[in-house]
Amino acid sequence: MYILRYKLWLEKDGKAFGEGPYQLLAGILETGSLSNAAKKLNMSYSLAYNLIKKVEKNLGFPLIQSKSGGQGGGGSVLTPEALDLMEKYNGFLKESASALEKLFAKYFNS
Amino acid sequence: MYILRYKLWLEKDGKAFGEGPYQLLAGILETGSLSNAAKKLNMSYSLAYNLIKKVEKNLGFPLIQSKSGGQGGGGSVLTPEALDLMEKYNGFLKESASALEKLFAKYFNS
Repeated sequence: MYILRYKLWLEKDGKAFGEGPYQLLAGILETGSLSNAAKKLNMSYSLAYNLIKKVEKNLGFPLIQSKSGGQGGGGSVLTPEALDLMEKYNGFLKESASALEKLFAKYFNS
Repeated sequence: MYILRYKLWLEKDGKAFGEGPYQLLAGILETGSLSNAAKKLNMSYSLAYNLIKKVEKNLGFPLIQSKSGGQGGGGSVLTPEALDLMEKYNGFLKESASALEKLFAKYFNS
């Protein structure tokens, strides 16, 4: 009995957006800050910050905006472009997972 | 404009069958020997031999059989189990590629 494994990611000028950046953006959305998102993923703040900056450069648009002041003294919000990319990536990933599992069952576990 | 990238592979007790072993088996089928298949893939014979042995161990069945004598003095043929696995893997991969490209176009290039 086999198990299916796969990785899906996007490239743009040879660079990637995939599971890692997606999880980090989802963490910022959930926790309201890059430092809390990094903690949640057991990443150092500087690693998370550099990942965001690298992906922003590859994609050609900003992913996060600083939110100064207010309760807790700031944090980060996602840009509209980041939210749009996350929504597309998530939809693509879910439908792909379903399609792959069906094909896998057809060929290997039927 | 994004480009879709993906990797698909199978695991069995945590071990894998994927693109590398598939290409090596396809090379044996085409050239009639492990050494010619290894050359075709720019692998050393020992690397190719060890890969076959590792995958055979993971899968729990033999992939190749030695064919002694005859024209060219021997070579290797694939076992029925190897041919069956290749056929399934190839069918799965082709249908998966088609499904993923359609979903990718739906979410990212429409």
